[in-house]
Amino acid sequence: MVAPLVTVVVDVMPKPEILDPQGKAVSGALARLGFAGVDGVRQGKRFELLLEADADGSLGAERLAEVEQMAATLLSNPVIEDYRVHVEQAVAQTQGVDA
Amino acid sequence: MVAPLVTVVVDVMPKPEILDPQGKAVSGALARLGFAGVDGVRQGKRFELLLEADADGSLGAERLAEVEQMAATLLSNPVIEDYRVHVEQAVAQTQGVDA
Repeated sequence: MVAPLVTVVVDVMPKPEILDPQGKAVSGALARLGFAGVDGVRQGKRFELLLEADADGSLGAERLAEVEQMAATLLSNPVIEDYRVHVEQAVAQTQGVDA
Repeated sequence: MVAPLVTVVVDVMPKPEILDPQGKAVSGALARLGFAGVDGVRQGKRFELLLEADADGSLGAERLAEVEQMAATLLSNPVIEDYRVHVEQAVAQTQGVDA
C-alpha cells in the first residue's frame, strides 16, 4: 500500500521592512537591460515539499501544522522573513520519489 | 497622475530532471529534525515584481510578455530551470515605492 502524495509549497520572502540587496540587484539589472516600468523587486525562496498524505489524498490540519513548524524552524528565519504555506496539488499515487 | 501598481510573481524552480542539491540538503535536515513523511524537497526562487500597470489597474498582454522575457533572460536559466509568471494582486494607487 502506497500513501498518496501531496505537494505543499512554502514561499519565504524577506519582510517588507528588511532591506533586500538581491532584489535591488535584480531591479538594477532589469533597468540596465532596458526593461522599464519596474518599481521594485523582492527576491525570496520557494520550497516544494512532497508529502505523504492521508488515504483520501488530503492533508490533515495536524500535518499542515507540522509543515508550518518546518517553515518556521528550518525553511525561514522568522526574524527577517515571512513564510506562507499552501497546498499546491494532489499527486497521483506513485511508487515513491527519491528524497 | 500616478500609475497603479501590480505585483507580478515569477516562480523559478529547477527542472524535474535536474539534480537539486539544496533541496536534498533541506530534505535531509528535515529528517534529522524528526519530521517524517517528507518524500522530497525542491528549492527554487520566488521574485515579486512591482510593475506600473495600465490606468485601469490591469497588465496588458504586451507587458506580461515583457515579464516572460525578464524571466527567461535574467531571472532564470532556462537550461536548468522552469519559470512561471502569474499576477498576484493589484496594489492600490500609491505615491511610489523605492526600487
